[in-house]
This record gives sequence, C-alpha cells and structure tokens, in this order.
Amino acid sequence: MPESNSVSNVTAPTRFIQVGPVTYAYRRFGSGSRPPLLCLQHFTGTLDNWDPAVTDPLAREREVILFDNAGIGRSTGVVPETISGMSQHVKAFLESLRLDSCDVLGFSLGGMIAQQLAKDQPSLFRRMILVGTAPRGGEDIMHLNKPNLAPIFANPALQGYARLQKLFFAPSDSSQTAGAAFVARLAQRTQDREPAAGPDVAKAQLAAFRDWEHADGERFADLLKLRQPTLVVNGVHDELIPVKNSYWLSAWLPNAVLMTYPDSGHGSLFQFHESFTRQASAFLASDSESAAF
Amino acid sequence: MPESNSVSNVTAPTRFIQVGPVTYAYRRFGSGSRPPLLCLQHFTGTLDNWDPAVTDPLAREREVILFDNAGIGRSTGVVPETISGMSQHVKAFLESLRLDSCDVLGFSLGGMIAQQLAKDQPSLFRRMILVGTAPRGGEDIMHLNKPNLAPIFANPALQGYARLQKLFFAPSDSSQTAGAAFVARLAQRTQDREPAAGPDVAKAQLAAFRDWEHADGERFADLLKLRQPTLVVNGVHDELIPVKNSYWLSAWLPNAVLMTYPDSGHGSLFQFHESFTRQASAFLASDSESAAF
Repeated sequence: MPESNSVSNVTAPTRFIQVGPVTYAYRRFGSGSRPPLLCLQHFTGTLDNWDPAVTDPLAREREVILFDNAGIGRSTGVVPETISGMSQHVKAFLESLRLDSCDVLGFSLGGMIAQQLAKDQPSLFRRMILVGTAPRGGEDIMHLNKPNLAPIFANPALQGYARLQKLFFAPSDSSQTAGAAFVARLAQRTQDREPAAGPDVAKAQLAAFRDWEHADGERFADLLKLRQPTLVVNGVHDELIPVKNSYWLSAWLPNAVLMTYPDSGHGSLFQFHESFTRQASAFLASDSESAAF
Repeated sequence: MPESNSVSNVTAPTRFIQVGPVTYAYRRFGSGSRPPLLCLQHFTGTLDNWDPAVTDPLAREREVILFDNAGIGRSTGVVPETISGMSQHVKAFLESLRLDSCDVLGFSLGGMIAQQLAKDQPSLFRRMILVGTAPRGGEDIMHLNKPNLAPIFANPALQGYARLQKLFFAPSDSSQTAGAAFVARLAQRTQDREPAAGPDVAKAQLAAFRDWEHADGERFADLLKLRQPTLVVNGVHDELIPVKNSYWLSAWLPNAVLMTYPDSGHGSLFQFHESFTRQASAFLASDSESAAF
C-alpha cells in the first residue's frame, strides 16, 4: 500500500507521530490545492469509524487528516475528561505536523473540540463544518440512559456496528437501510484496523459531555467570537444530540449556514453522503468571507 | 419588448388572463427543459417585488411564472382573508394556463399558500421551496405592532422601498448594504410597473395571517402529508416570521432540507441571491425522490 496512492479510508495506512509522551495514530490521504481538512471524530469512534463515502470524495481536492485523540484506537495516553483537554491534544498534533491553519470537520464530540480550538486559537481553522454537535451550554447531549436510547444499549443482540446503525440512523426503513449500507462501507477496511474503544473511553468522554452542558459565562456568548465561515449540519431526528443544538449553533454563530436533513438521525452525513460531500465540497471550495455558498 | 427575448423581471411584460370574473396579472419568462417555477409573493408584494437577482438566474433553466393574487397589483377581484381563499385563486390561475404540475417558490405569505395547495392537491407541486414562511399553527407571524417592528412603521422617513429595506434585512451594516442593493435592483424596472398595495390589501392579508396561526386539528400534523421534496430557507434574524417557524416546517415535513443564512432577516434569499439561486437551482434540477441535493 504505497502512501502516495492511498486516496481512501478503506486503504490509507495508519501513521503514528510522537509528541512528548504521547503517540498519536492518524491517517492522511488525498491531495489537491485546497487547505487540508482535519476530521475530528465522534464518541468512542476511531479512525475506522470514518465512512469512506464521506472522506474519500472530500480527499479529491485536498488532504484529509483523520485523528485519534489520546487514548483512542492506537493513540497512547489518557482520554481527557473535558473538551478542553481533548483540544490540547489536537493542538499538539497539528503543531507536530507543522500545520498553522487548516479546515476542520468536527462530528459530534469532534465538533465540540473544534469549537473549543476555534475559541482558543482563532486563526487555526479557516472554515469549519460542525455536524451533529452542540454548543457549550447545549442540552440533552448524549444521555444514553434516556428512554429513546437505553433499550438500544440494553439489547444484547445489538453490538458493535449493529448498535451503531440503530443509534446513528432514524427508525424508518429508509434510514435503517442507509445505516446498513454505512456499516457495510465501514467493514470494507479489513487490514490495519483500530481496536474498538472500551468502557473507560466512554466513561471519560461522557464526563466531557456533562461538563460541556454547563454554560461558561453567558450562555452561547462565546459563539459570537467565532467568525470563520461555518457550515452546521444535522439530521432532524437525532436522538444523541438533538437538532435544537444545531439551531442554537447556527443562530448564535455570526457566520454560519445551517443544513438539516430529513428522515435521519445523528449520522445524517453518512446517510446523505452524496449530498453532504457535494455541499461540504462547495462550502470548503469557497474563499468568500461569508459562510453562504 | 418581444416576449420571447424577455429573460428578466426587469423587462418581462406583464400579461393578463381572465378566469370568470377575475383578471389575473402575471409575468412568464425564461425557458429550459425543467418544469415551470411558480413564484408566490409576500405580504403586500406585487410582481415588481420579485428581485431580478433571484428570478433571472432561475429562469435560465425553466419558465418562471410570477403571479399577482386577486386584488394585488393589476389583478382584479377581492383580496381573500384566508390562505385557503388565496389558494383558490392560484388554482384557478394554473388551470387557466393548463398547468397540471409545476415547481413552486413560496415566499412568506406565498409559502403558506403553497402549503395549502400541496395539502389540497398533492400532485400539483413536484418540488417546493418555502422561504421565510410558517406552517399553519406557527407563531409570531407578521405581528407588525411588536416592539421590534412598530418603530419602522411609525417612522415617517421610512416609506416604500426604504421601509422594505429595514423590514427585510438585519440591522447590521452588511445586511443593510445588501438591502440597499436589493431595492436598487427592484428599481431597475422603470416601465409597465404595478401599483403598490394599499391598506385594504394589508388588512385582508393580516387577517389571513391571524387565521393561519390557529392550528387546524393536531398541530403540524398536516405537514406529515406533504411528501414532495421541499427546501426550507430562512434568515436567522427574521423578525417578520421568526426562524423557529422554519425549524418546525423542516422538522415536521417528512422530506425537507432546511438552509438558514446568517446575518439576515426575512429577505435572506435577496441578500444571498447568489447562494440562494445556486442552491435552489441544484435542488430544482434534482429528480431524486429525496429532498437531499
């Protein structure tokens, strides 16, 4: 698998870089004239949870960089219990790659880390795509014991990708069919795979969600400072991080376009991967100061 | 001005068609292989309130049909006091043109009429674009006496297009600048113009808004029946029909994509006319059963 020919998350080799005591696992593939796109992953997700139907079209015009935060997959170190702590690892990783600025796709947990970094280092991200995520002070973020979610975790028949399909897609036949296609795409990668996250990862990340639900000062006021063009995306039936959080994000961010998809949940970007990558590509290809594209 | 050469609302001649006792004023211009696009206008708006920066790009791939409902502009008849009554005039007009099916762009009041027709005659609209509008049972629809709007109406220095600029655009410099460009575009048409709507028109249309705020049965349940692909668009700072109404529309319609624009009010489609017409064109060009585009 020569690296120069890897243009898919099905085949891209996992790379490793050491920064101080921590070794980070990542993948980097694609090419083009556009700024690199850093992809920050969801709750318990590893490099292998990035759908090639999303990453690969985006990699046609730029490098795509997938990142395992500390303690995830084959990255060493301890999973932080705050978004801020996770953002420090992203910062260290980007510095080690000598990337001063890039675009970012933050999905779910990853979207929170992206917001934290955009606040702490305004020049870091040129353009942001925030999918299925919430602002600090958001509500109903990953309450896995609520009535609509607990039965999915309690069902012993739903493990691994089968559980992911139930969680990320709406109950309709059409959405579940899209979910089955999604997990089939994830399974296309057969070598150089990541270990799945265990209960310790989940516990630390859930602690970070609980902390993120507490507003830091005036609720949502920090969003007013994030000036870069931002595309906010969500499925209207997202049970993990309900769409109202995306409404808040797009109404408070001064320069954000919101797109919501019907008949879909947390994984709307995977369900509507053709539309999502077309829209995301058009958004990222723009050099306008405005988020409108 | 030969009709065959008219591809702009700056120059398209106004046409008239008689249906029973009513003569409807309309314009029809553009051409292409796509289904015609019927444009239904906002509160007190006439044919002359359609921004050529919105209509003309859309007319490159299809006929665009602008319509004055009964009692508006040079259409005769009485302005109905219900959305349902207005929708009957649209129905009669389309029948007189022998159009069984078309696409529709409903802006504000026009978006309510589009929803009513889609409910009453499901096959009429292939694809719908609903901008700055609300579902039946929506809230805070055109309450012109509320604190954020009353001063604009009370200010004698704000008449005509100057008032429209204040009402349709956000208070920011950037939005007001876009508003000035919008009214300059409306003023490009110098001949064959429509008379402005008077207080009787406003009174009847406001009565229709008040009626529309009352849910008809279970709130929003009617939206579940509207199956055609729909694109919902709004500015996040819309004071005339707040964006929460677009959230309801897109969350309840089974097949709708929502796009919201930052730094903009009721006239987001005019402020971001390049983005809006690009997105609307892509949406209308799709033959997918899904609204995702």
